[in-house]
Amino acid sequence: MTTLEQRIAPLVARANDALDRFLPPAAQPPMRLHEAMRYAALAPGKRIRPVLVYATGQALGVSLKVLDAAAAAVEFIHAYSLIHDDLPPMDDDDLRRGRPTCHRQFDEATAILAGDALQALAFEALLHDSAGSLSDGCRLAMVQVLAQASGSLGMAGGQALDLSAVGKKLTLAELENMHKHKTGALIRASVKLGLLASGNEDADLDQRLERYATCIGLAFQVQDDILDVEGATEVIGKPQGSDADRDKPTYPNLLGMDQAKATARQLCDDAIASLATLAERGDTLAMIANFIVKRDR
Amino acid sequence: MTTLEQRIAPLVARANDALDRFLPPAAQPPMRLHEAMRYAALAPGKRIRPVLVYATGQALGVSLKVLDAAAAAVEFIHAYSLIHDDLPPMDDDDLRRGRPTCHRQFDEATAILAGDALQALAFEALLHDSAGSLSDGCRLAMVQVLAQASGSLGMAGGQALDLSAVGKKLTLAELENMHKHKTGALIRASVKLGLLASGNEDADLDQRLERYATCIGLAFQVQDDILDVEGATEVIGKPQGSDADRDKPTYPNLLGMDQAKATARQLCDDAIASLATLAERGDTLAMIANFIVKRDR
Repeated sequence: MTTLEQRIAPLVARANDALDRFLPPAAQPPMRLHEAMRYAALAPGKRIRPVLVYATGQALGVSLKVLDAAAAAVEFIHAYSLIHDDLPPMDDDDLRRGRPTCHRQFDEATAILAGDALQALAFEALLHDSAGSLSDGCRLAMVQVLAQASGSLGMAGGQALDLSAVGKKLTLAELENMHKHKTGALIRASVKLGLLASGNEDADLDQRLERYATCIGLAFQVQDDILDVEGATEVIGKPQGSDADRDKPTYPNLLGMDQAKATARQLCDDAIASLATLAERGDTLAMIANFIVKRDR
Repeated sequence: MTTLEQRIAPLVARANDALDRFLPPAAQPPMRLHEAMRYAALAPGKRIRPVLVYATGQALGVSLKVLDAAAAAVEFIHAYSLIHDDLPPMDDDDLRRGRPTCHRQFDEATAILAGDALQALAFEALLHDSAGSLSDGCRLAMVQVLAQASGSLGMAGGQALDLSAVGKKLTLAELENMHKHKTGALIRASVKLGLLASGNEDADLDQRLERYATCIGLAFQVQDDILDVEGATEVIGKPQGSDADRDKPTYPNLLGMDQAKATARQLCDDAIASLATLAERGDTLAMIANFIVKRDR
């Protein structure tokens, strides 16, 4: 039996290669902009979204080569959102993954533009189909999924909800709604892109994978909140308790720590249960679900 | 003979309808974000880019209905770029088209997100094909054109060049290169989208329209620089001389005012000359070229 590490490491390496290939070289003008885009998009990270694209596609028999463009695209959207979220008018963070945030390493104007250009690059990347095996209709569906997941009814909308929540008492339902948009939308899109690439149109499978993605998206956020209280700065790469400091609503605040941990575990179990019909083919996806609630960063 | 006003007014009205239709309603959550997106994208404006999509498509026999999505898409990209360009770390402008800029009317965080969400909406809009007559391949080509025009080798890259030029002495070639990216890329994309919608694959026509778009793009910028010196604040909607104040390179600075005006005129003539093979069908496009160098705002 392979470990998570053995399964995931090649997918992470493949994602990094794809990101590097789709990004303009740092030596190409405008150089400072391209340096900033590469700095942010190639920063060390878990690459959960591209790994989900690969793992979902793989579970459905798609070759990894066909999935590279979509894997890079979701990570470009994620990277752009981190750059913009870190800006002073938003979260005003100095550190990201243990390194200076993009606007600290470069400057605010360059950071805004690097985020903007990474969003455009995500859509451009999606149009590359190195294996040439995806139909035009499939690629259009991918563009639509990514655009909807990124926009005001997806990730950007979730960030707006997050901003408006600072200093407010949210109900559990409101907190969940915020996370379903802010991080959940792109995680669901990652799984959906893997499914689309397979050409499989089984509605039951679609629903099961959607359920899987929804559960791991929420579990990821609950675990993030837990780590924000319990993790050390050197491990999680940002000052411990930084969310609580800003009076942001979190799962441990709302539920208490024990119940928050039980919730993360339950979401993970639900995610894995929804993979039942995939049998062994769903093993990597199940491992990812476990990883999400067991990670310490 | 119809006047420009008679030709253009219905296209502007049609563009405004399309923008309104593709934008989420202000009453839909997250409301503040949707209000900001609508505030920026529906602000009074010339709508040159959507008008170019319509006029190019019309010249090639495409029905306006088929062009709505592309027309809205280019204006959403334009609107997002204005929001981000106006932010304090960039141009730090308080007024845009005579009204408070988005971050002054709302707040900086909301303005960043509204820009981000408008970019995603542009790609989402492109996927709508109300008339159902565009092939999947055509729509994919449109996504590609828009993504390239918006990204680091297009508009966002041009803005980066512009930022790095503040306080520097640029050569005429450097100034032109900056504008070819910053405003030119999206203007060329607007014309190209109209061409793509027609399905016409004549390489000579493609080249001629590209030349037309390049010339009016530059003419537009030269005229902008001229108006920045000669226009009154109440007409152009921003403080007169605001670019010169920030020590930005401009055509009048580099060429002198008389030569700048002659350049604008020459570019306009070149643009019109490249429409020759379209004969009367190119009349609206020719009128737009004339309008660009004769406008006073």
